[in-house]
Amino acid sequence: MLDIALFGSGRIGRVHADTIATGPRTRLSWVCDPVPDAADRLAGQYGAKATRKAEEVLTDPAVDAVVIASPTPTHLDLITAATDAGKAVLCEKPIDLDLERVDACWERIAGSDPRVMIGFNRRFDPAFAEIHARVAAGEIGRLEHLVITSRDPEPPPAEYAAVAGGIFRDMTIHDFDMARFFLGDIVEVHAMAAPVGAGGPEGSGEADHAVVTLRSADGRLCQIANSRSCAFGYDQRIEAFGTDGMLQAANRTPTTVRAYTAAGVETASPYLRFFLERYQDAYRRELEYFAEAVESGTPPSPGYADGRAALVLADAARESVRTGRTVTVG
Amino acid sequence: MLDIALFGSGRIGRVHADTIATGPRTRLSWVCDPVPDAADRLAGQYGAKATRKAEEVLTDPAVDAVVIASPTPTHLDLITAATDAGKAVLCEKPIDLDLERVDACWERIAGSDPRVMIGFNRRFDPAFAEIHARVAAGEIGRLEHLVITSRDPEPPPAEYAAVAGGIFRDMTIHDFDMARFFLGDIVEVHAMAAPVGAGGPEGSGEADHAVVTLRSADGRLCQIANSRSCAFGYDQRIEAFGTDGMLQAANRTPTTVRAYTAAGVETASPYLRFFLERYQDAYRRELEYFAEAVESGTPPSPGYADGRAALVLADAARESVRTGRTVTVG
Amino acid sequence: MLDIALFGSGRIGRVHADTIATGPRTRLSWVCDPVPDAADRLAGQYGAKATRKAEEVLTDPAVDAVVIASPTPTHLDLITAATDAGKAVLCEKPIDLDLERVDACWERIAGSDPRVMIGFNRRFDPAFAEIHARVAAGEIGRLEHLVITSRDPEPPPAEYAAVAGGIFRDMTIHDFDMARFFLGDIVEVHAMAAPVGAGGPEGSGEADHAVVTLRSADGRLCQIANSRSCAFGYDQRIEAFGTDGMLQAANRTPTTVRAYTAAGVETASPYLRFFLERYQDAYRRELEYFAEAVESGTPPSPGYADGRAALVLADAARESVRTGRTVTVG
Amino acid sequence: MLDIALFGSGRIGRVHADTIATGPRTRLSWVCDPVPDAADRLAGQYGAKATRKAEEVLTDPAVDAVVIASPTPTHLDLITAATDAGKAVLCEKPIDLDLERVDACWERIAGSDPRVMIGFNRRFDPAFAEIHARVAAGEIGRLEHLVITSRDPEPPPAEYAAVAGGIFRDMTIHDFDMARFFLGDIVEVHAMAAPVGAGGPEGSGEADHAVVTLRSADGRLCQIANSRSCAFGYDQRIEAFGTDGMLQAANRTPTTVRAYTAAGVETASPYLRFFLERYQDAYRRELEYFAEAVESGTPPSPGYADGRAALVLADAARESVRTGRTVTVG
Repeated sequence: MLDIALFGSGRIGRVHADTIATGPRTRLSWVCDPVPDAADRLAGQYGAKATRKAEEVLTDPAVDAVVIASPTPTHLDLITAATDAGKAVLCEKPIDLDLERVDACWERIAGSDPRVMIGFNRRFDPAFAEIHARVAAGEIGRLEHLVITSRDPEPPPAEYAAVAGGIFRDMTIHDFDMARFFLGDIVEVHAMAAPVGAGGPEGSGEADHAVVTLRSADGRLCQIANSRSCAFGYDQRIEAFGTDGMLQAANRTPTTVRAYTAAGVETASPYLRFFLERYQDAYRRELEYFAEAVESGTPPSPGYADGRAALVLADAARESVRTGRTVTVG
Repeated sequence: MLDIALFGSGRIGRVHADTIATGPRTRLSWVCDPVPDAADRLAGQYGAKATRKAEEVLTDPAVDAVVIASPTPTHLDLITAATDAGKAVLCEKPIDLDLERVDACWERIAGSDPRVMIGFNRRFDPAFAEIHARVAAGEIGRLEHLVITSRDPEPPPAEYAAVAGGIFRDMTIHDFDMARFFLGDIVEVHAMAAPVGAGGPEGSGEADHAVVTLRSADGRLCQIANSRSCAFGYDQRIEAFGTDGMLQAANRTPTTVRAYTAAGVETASPYLRFFLERYQDAYRRELEYFAEAVESGTPPSPGYADGRAALVLADAARESVRTGRTVTVG
Repeated sequence: MLDIALFGSGRIGRVHADTIATGPRTRLSWVCDPVPDAADRLAGQYGAKATRKAEEVLTDPAVDAVVIASPTPTHLDLITAATDAGKAVLCEKPIDLDLERVDACWERIAGSDPRVMIGFNRRFDPAFAEIHARVAAGEIGRLEHLVITSRDPEPPPAEYAAVAGGIFRDMTIHDFDMARFFLGDIVEVHAMAAPVGAGGPEGSGEADHAVVTLRSADGRLCQIANSRSCAFGYDQRIEAFGTDGMLQAANRTPTTVRAYTAAGVETASPYLRFFLERYQDAYRRELEYFAEAVESGTPPSPGYADGRAALVLADAARESVRTGRTVTVG
Repeated sequence: MLDIALFGSGRIGRVHADTIATGPRTRLSWVCDPVPDAADRLAGQYGAKATRKAEEVLTDPAVDAVVIASPTPTHLDLITAATDAGKAVLCEKPIDLDLERVDACWERIAGSDPRVMIGFNRRFDPAFAEIHARVAAGEIGRLEHLVITSRDPEPPPAEYAAVAGGIFRDMTIHDFDMARFFLGDIVEVHAMAAPVGAGGPEGSGEADHAVVTLRSADGRLCQIANSRSCAFGYDQRIEAFGTDGMLQAANRTPTTVRAYTAAGVETASPYLRFFLERYQDAYRRELEYFAEAVESGTPPSPGYADGRAALVLADAARESVRTGRTVTVG
């Protein structure tokens, strides 16, 4: 059993708490949150200890690993401290909103053989992972074109949006990682956001819609479509088009029930509402993989460099919106 | 070009008129109907001649074949007269509602090498025909179980129902033919109709729903479901289950458009409304096949014996409803 | 937390053990099996106690309820003993293969206010339960016709089949319960089995396929299709047809991935293999409901009378196969 | 009946010949082709006259309208001559590959009240037209994002590709028109093509894949995906995403048949192979609309200006590939 401490008890923290506590090979030992009530409540629910102080957690020799689900500005400090304390780390995306700080952190920790995994949970979605495996097995020949659709059911609260860094660093960052998962290194980025001129001088802060085009180092193309709202639920699809065929992952309905009436036929219920429902399996498989990697001493993937690379693409997308140019990266 | 005369200018007659007139190898030369206005109108639409008198048509040496789409009670006389006149015949189902009369007619005409095809149009539906061909090619191994769903969008007018002979001879007769198309000779028939006790002493006259179970001579099973009304359109499906897999033919939507809203996702428009829309291709392919068979001298199929066999099954279903027994036929 | 003892550590016993042990409101305290190794192994896996002796379990005052997943011949004795001991019971189907014994048991225990639920897990399948709720809410008007498709991926082992009582009491019994779940009391039963004459004098013992027609007390029709093998997985579907529309529950694929190649398009992976995969959610929801019912003092449903009623229908189906008659029940 | 002369007897010419000859309100009177045999053969098939000389056709007072399906370089001269002769024109896309020539032609003919329709047949596809109408009716609120997928089953012959002007002017031009059909005027264009550096100095001539991003004058986004080959048939889809929902048009299968085997389930046959099959209905509806517009004196749409606008977008896409910039148009 891997002994895990959790930082952060917000929405995504609660997902991890449940996943850790009910996983077959993991145990939730600590919940750490500066808001004591929140930590107490969540810890109590799973029989874990609660604390406001990260040191208390990191000096506990029983703790094998930490899951960082606290606000983005705390990520780098916690990664550094946990790595210094010899703990393995699973950190929610994004690592940070600032590339220089991300690089500075890495320079600081690189020498200590850090075991850091970034929480790009979608790589562990059963459908996306299946497509990845079948593409890798050659089922559709050479993958030529990837289409990623990613629409949230509704915009985040204003206070969240204010610090999230704009649609590319908050939302598209998942899709950038997905593109890299399938296509490897990306060398060209183009983006358009709507409404036109959204987000002030930086060009992306308040956009509701964004479309991104990528070219990989080996010349393959990727299109991403994002929206901050979607009337029919959480729209998360992938289409991998290759020389010998295509593989698609569709959205998930609550059940297989279909209705047939005078108004229309083959109607399914709206798709699973949001990431908690849609990616529940992905979070579970992500944590199982992390626990397995830590126990076996394998460097976990996606790692720190993957988190950095997705941020580079987000910055390039913002620059593309500002300049109207295809931005070269890497 | 095959010169064809049409008997009957009602709903199904108009389908045949259009199919004959626009077919690449057929020409509509006559429309015969005791109601002069009806014949005139339909004939005029396609540049054909109109008449009230069958003799006028049957003595016209230019006429190669006749299509009989007049009311059921006229079928046997027209088949006999047309056969005597040396014309090939495509007659709408059912041949007649009375088995004795059907047999008497056959005795009368059998000697003159009659070329009679019965209009079981569904054998020519592209989807059903495709399943038949793929089953015959062995794609699903041995066919073990056939499921036929056949529901009309709404009940026929009362005056039609009064003379149609009940659900089994009017509606299920198509499904009996479909069962024979896939399974060959049928030896056991069981039926239940609803409402309970529908249709007076004969047990089936006014039934809204009926379910039938058949066993073929080589031991395979078939289930038929009928309804006189269906809220979402014309429900016409087939499921062929075999040792190595299954083939299904689904209903047809007007287009491939699907809608996604907060109320439901993947919603298609209601299915094609009724037989005129759903089986338009089937009527066309049926007539083309008939013309080809006549021109090449091949006995057309399904033939008189197939029309008779479906009627035998309809009578057996009525008997089963009356007695509660599985009825043995053949 | 409800303290539960499990009888039987075979395939279905292991499903229940896992469900009980990981359920939020249940605890697995005992595993009882005459084969000591099997009980030890399963109990050890979940930190429960193991025993060969039912008495040891039933005299433990900490035990609130028992789940009976042992072979069918042991069901009635265990139900009786557990009820005498004041324990609530969740017993796998069928109660027993012999109706007289079933009735005798009930007479024996009826006075002691027994809390007995029969494990017709499919009532708890999310899709089937959703259709039931939506039908009850009037979404399709009056339900007129129910179609149940139930095909196993492969036949059971010979030694299992030898004691299972034939396809109707072993396999169709689930579908009989499903018919009663949707339509209430059944008054007429007709069945055909294939191969013809299968199963010796009783007519059903070795049948590979069976089709059953039912009429409910209020005149509605139901068709059931069963097969002992199915090339594409576990085929478990329901179609509820009503005056205002239709609701269907389809099979479940492992993921939403679809493949598009020159050989065919929109191909999904074969359906979930068997009941362990398909009905995992159903077993979980069944147990949660049972625990809730026991805790709240509500009589659990489906109850003993439902288990009996399904057996009556199975016997009627066997009689129908033997006699070729529609059998009246109730 | 509208009397129509056809220019060009190649692949697309034959489609028009059949559509004109079998349409309810049109008659094919002439086939004009510099290759006499080709004209003779096609004209003979439909009982029309054949000629090598355009003048012969254009001086025939019986001719009401012409359909121009000859090679692209002949389009402008034929449009001019036909317009001068007072004939209505339906001209295949593109008008021409050179924008200056397009504008010069328009200056030449604009004074004579030209009735020119450009053959963007996809506006008449039943599924696309249905989505357009439902979007216009407000069914999905404000349309925010349009996704167009357009993949040919296989590359054109080398000799065709050599003169077709590259993927944007040959293939994407249909998608540019579709974008304008749904979104109105386009103001920004970005494109990437693959392989990288495809097509020499002009950047697009030999590309196998291309992706294009558009922004409309009112700020809405569109993504286009093109491929010169597609293993599973002709891939022609549209997704219209709006504030209240989404409408999608999927590809068309030959029939509704689905196969279920151990290898996979719900498999449909590959999509209709190419534009002749997929857009057969669209060509028919296009011609019927054209005939109706000519007869009623309505200016036909899409018109000359629409043909020009699509060419402007194609040129902008080529420039974007060359410069890596978002190109502003209009």
